[in-house]
Amino acid sequence: MKKVFLVCTKCKKDFPMQRIHPRCTHCNEPLEVVYTPLRKGSFLSKRNLLERYQSFFPFISIHKGISLGEGNTPLIKSSVVAEDFGIKNLYFKNEAQNPTWSFKDRGTIAGLEHALSLGYKKIGTVSTGNMAVSVAAYGARAKLETYVFVSNSLPREKIGPIAIYHPHLIMVEGDYGDLYFKSLEMGERFGIYFINSDVPFRVEGSKTIAFEICEQMDFSPPDYVVVPVSAGGNIRGILKGFEEFYHVGLISHVPKMIASQASGCSPITNAFEQGQEMVERVSHPHTIAHAIENPFPPSGNQVLRKLKENDGTSTKVNDEEIIEAQGMMAQEGIFGQPEAAVPVAATKKLLMNKYLKSTDTVVCIITGGGLKYTAALELHSFDVRTISLERLEEVF
Amino acid sequence: MKKVFLVCTKCKKDFPMQRIHPRCTHCNEPLEVVYTPLRKGSFLSKRNLLERYQSFFPFISIHKGISLGEGNTPLIKSSVVAEDFGIKNLYFKNEAQNPTWSFKDRGTIAGLEHALSLGYKKIGTVSTGNMAVSVAAYGARAKLETYVFVSNSLPREKIGPIAIYHPHLIMVEGDYGDLYFKSLEMGERFGIYFINSDVPFRVEGSKTIAFEICEQMDFSPPDYVVVPVSAGGNIRGILKGFEEFYHVGLISHVPKMIASQASGCSPITNAFEQGQEMVERVSHPHTIAHAIENPFPPSGNQVLRKLKENDGTSTKVNDEEIIEAQGMMAQEGIFGQPEAAVPVAATKKLLMNKYLKSTDTVVCIITGGGLKYTAALELHSFDVRTISLERLEEVF
Repeated sequence: MKKVFLVCTKCKKDFPMQRIHPRCTHCNEPLEVVYTPLRKGSFLSKRNLLERYQSFFPFISIHKGISLGEGNTPLIKSSVVAEDFGIKNLYFKNEAQNPTWSFKDRGTIAGLEHALSLGYKKIGTVSTGNMAVSVAAYGARAKLETYVFVSNSLPREKIGPIAIYHPHLIMVEGDYGDLYFKSLEMGERFGIYFINSDVPFRVEGSKTIAFEICEQMDFSPPDYVVVPVSAGGNIRGILKGFEEFYHVGLISHVPKMIASQASGCSPITNAFEQGQEMVERVSHPHTIAHAIENPFPPSGNQVLRKLKENDGTSTKVNDEEIIEAQGMMAQEGIFGQPEAAVPVAATKKLLMNKYLKSTDTVVCIITGGGLKYTAALELHSFDVRTISLERLEEVF
Repeated sequence: MKKVFLVCTKCKKDFPMQRIHPRCTHCNEPLEVVYTPLRKGSFLSKRNLLERYQSFFPFISIHKGISLGEGNTPLIKSSVVAEDFGIKNLYFKNEAQNPTWSFKDRGTIAGLEHALSLGYKKIGTVSTGNMAVSVAAYGARAKLETYVFVSNSLPREKIGPIAIYHPHLIMVEGDYGDLYFKSLEMGERFGIYFINSDVPFRVEGSKTIAFEICEQMDFSPPDYVVVPVSAGGNIRGILKGFEEFYHVGLISHVPKMIASQASGCSPITNAFEQGQEMVERVSHPHTIAHAIENPFPPSGNQVLRKLKENDGTSTKVNDEEIIEAQGMMAQEGIFGQPEAAVPVAATKKLLMNKYLKSTDTVVCIITGGGLKYTAALELHSFDVRTISLERLEEVF
């Protein structure tokens, strides 16, 4: 068995695999998993996500009966949007077909497996959206005590889709940023594994998005992958996945990553554009893409480090562009939530300013489904006609 | 190429493959596709649903670029619900992970392929729910003129999730039952392929649910399959799929089918229980499971004929049992819409009345996702606690 450990993404200090606090004790930057796959593996045949890619995960065995059939989402080649944008090879990786309809399920199952391998009987998360739903669902499935901490200001309609899985659902009065750190501290104290936004094993789960893209493109990965970025964990994981496939010789190049944010909350893009190495907290964040409205992303600095190394870029789009992109995607048959439209809007922008060429191959990560946030439908204009049955043929 | 035709499910009169009206000119019963697969086929490797099972479909070639990655949904072995019910082998086939989050996408792609193979440039449907969404999405994807007729009484919140795909969305004043037949008549007149609820090729699409279950259970199919039944097309298709795998020797028995309906609208169960051969229209249908609230199912008589032949049964559950089952499924990590909980409630009932044994292997078809109808969440009671950040540790 290959030695596995956690390493700081900045100072490279290493930590034991048993650590559940996700940040470095020395420089407070996020940790990540270091693990060299034992073999290339025959990962195509297995059905369970972790079993399929087990050689790229440091788990000796995979627990039975905790999967909900996550991953294995379609990669759809665009025709309608691609034509409109003037790009030949545009793809959508549709994560809305996961068990709780967002990419979060991949990281949750990986974090859950880590928790179980360490003997934890309780898990938790701090989230207001997709992650809360995902952790609540998998906690139920695994029959674990599950704690979901949400902000006291969470609107009533967001409660039900989390509460239906019957976690310990706690609305917390106080600063939401402080809650993140307090949850980690209490997790260590009370024996609860908090699978928060960018814990190392959640990031590991996101690797499988890259693995699947490689398989679906017959191991000729795209030139660019565009990811909506909030805490920064998902883009870290996707890039790590491509790098691992590259290192074992399964692919011959690593795609460039494009971090896409909303103008109303773009700490990573701000820092990137100003050539800074550290993200700064955004005051008064405001965007329709609530799921990526993170004013001070905990993996922000690591995303900046990796984008530099990867020769990728970071960009931002405004709410109007996001809603327009959401409508465009639906013209292709894909209804994503607003943040899932951010990469599509970003692709349009980067084609217009010539960063992307019409001959480039681009994959957009559609992170979650449109039914997650139906309020956005009000921002679209629809043409609905009313007619009597007798006069129906007039419509043709 | 094997000869393909449509045949009446009752009188066996045959019709050419080009016919798009789904009912017999002689006895007005539904038609179905007759086609003997040329070979067993190596259907496991292909990614597109129709390509994967092409040997079981009468399509010479499959159009590229119209799939949205439908099918290939997980079969989840229950632990929480199975324990609670006292049954060892209970499975959920989770159709909520389709592109528009219901099983309808399977029938839509099959109907769409038939429409394209016949040269149609326009498609349509009459629906208030899942089918409208599915046809609108695939029509957009295939760049076809797409007509969606809904009832004038459809609530505003149901419009957006259909309209986002920008079909010709028409609210029709008049009898909704008449609209079904008028749409078919006008489809023939104006060259529009209406992929309505139980047209033969929509039924063909549902076969793939059975095919996947067989594959996922290593070709040892279950004893029973429980399906929520509305128009009757889905259960017809699933049974036809098992029968086809049986006839080519891929499986050694055909599971018994259990049609499950809501007490507030159970025309098929009513007729079955009374030993009648024909369904009677239900007056004043009323159930929380709106998607299966069909008072006069067009495939009802054929479902009765097939249940008799198959030695299956038909049952009904009330709204309280449905909501309880919806909550139970979520305890397993699966959030289905109310009608998707009907088979689970039915399984409980049939175990209690000893129709099912604890040693039987049962698959429930979870037809669609819970975010489709969030109003049902109001019928659940949730325990949500509020606490200040300072006192957070009191929750453990």
